[in-house]
Amino acid sequence: MKYTKPLLKLIEEFQKLPGVGPKSAQRMAFYVLNQDMEQVEKLANSILEAKKLIKKCSSCHNISANDPCEICVSSSRDNKTICVVSEPKDLIAIERTNEYKGVYHVLGGLISPIDGIGPDELSIKELLGKVSKNNLNEIILALDTSTEGEATMLYLNRILSPLGKKITRLGFGLPAGTELEYADELTIARALEGRSEIK
Amino acid sequence: MKYTKPLLKLIEEFQKLPGVGPKSAQRMAFYVLNQDMEQVEKLANSILEAKKLIKKCSSCHNISANDPCEICVSSSRDNKTICVVSEPKDLIAIERTNEYKGVYHVLGGLISPIDGIGPDELSIKELLGKVSKNNLNEIILALDTSTEGEATMLYLNRILSPLGKKITRLGFGLPAGTELEYADELTIARALEGRSEIK
Repeated sequence: MKYTKPLLKLIEEFQKLPGVGPKSAQRMAFYVLNQDMEQVEKLANSILEAKKLIKKCSSCHNISANDPCEICVSSSRDNKTICVVSEPKDLIAIERTNEYKGVYHVLGGLISPIDGIGPDELSIKELLGKVSKNNLNEIILALDTSTEGEATMLYLNRILSPLGKKITRLGFGLPAGTELEYADELTIARALEGRSEIK
Repeated sequence: MKYTKPLLKLIEEFQKLPGVGPKSAQRMAFYVLNQDMEQVEKLANSILEAKKLIKKCSSCHNISANDPCEICVSSSRDNKTICVVSEPKDLIAIERTNEYKGVYHVLGGLISPIDGIGPDELSIKELLGKVSKNNLNEIILALDTSTEGEATMLYLNRILSPLGKKITRLGFGLPAGTELEYADELTIARALEGRSEIK
């Protein structure tokens, strides 16, 4: 015997969480045992409630407890600019900058033939519909700079450009706080291409 | 807005778990959202059940769904040998070796005046009772080799030795897989003291 049964079950469940190995799962399980019942119920309920309450926004496909989501209904957002992201976590990363005031469209993934994900698996049709109906100023393609991200941007650019809107992508270059010595060649090459005048 | 409310709450709850920062909490929350309801309920229920079902064994103070615990009632364990540990996780670490067949006594901590933990805060009285009543062969003090662990071993040795039982502590020396070059002085000094003849 190592663990009493309910503890073993809890450790197994915690281990299914991403980035949680056997040691962390054990620590987390002991933490649960050492909390009072109220705190443990708060944890369990927040898990169940998040799963029950959070749905997809029917307009932008972001996750939200409301439909349409908080961003789509906000009067302070510029709905003439649409930022296309792969996943809700990318949207959150952009929101965190507090720099973007437009709205979003979440694709639900990136084109990846190896994983069997083609354009039809993503919410590209809905994006096209939105772009052709609305009087947009700009479509920002804010996708990963991975092979899948680049392929998706190429595809989106091809099908969106006939609609005559301004299509942009995120700037290339050195990340903040980089030591040039350790940056890879491609990043430096692209930073050179994208150099800007010092005013 | 960054997170929709139930998601924010879930991330906050996950962040309270030991070793979980904002990034991991977000990853774990998105994992929950991407699972089906059945799996999410399994996670939430295992948290609640572990907390509800697991109690302290009234004999050895280990955590268990049963009282007395699985080890205390097992007929295959040698109840003439008692291994004193600080916490249930130390007991689990020893059980993992599959080398120990005796029973345990969990102190519930280590003597640490700075944290306000004296002998009365630990289950030392219960240990004394057990040692004086039973016909024991050996008491193994398997405590951390930290200051608190050493202080607790000194204290236990002082109050247990008048009872005339054999009291031992875990061996000192190099951990398995050590490069001598990187071992600290104290460890090497103790490994020298504790050297054994090669047969």
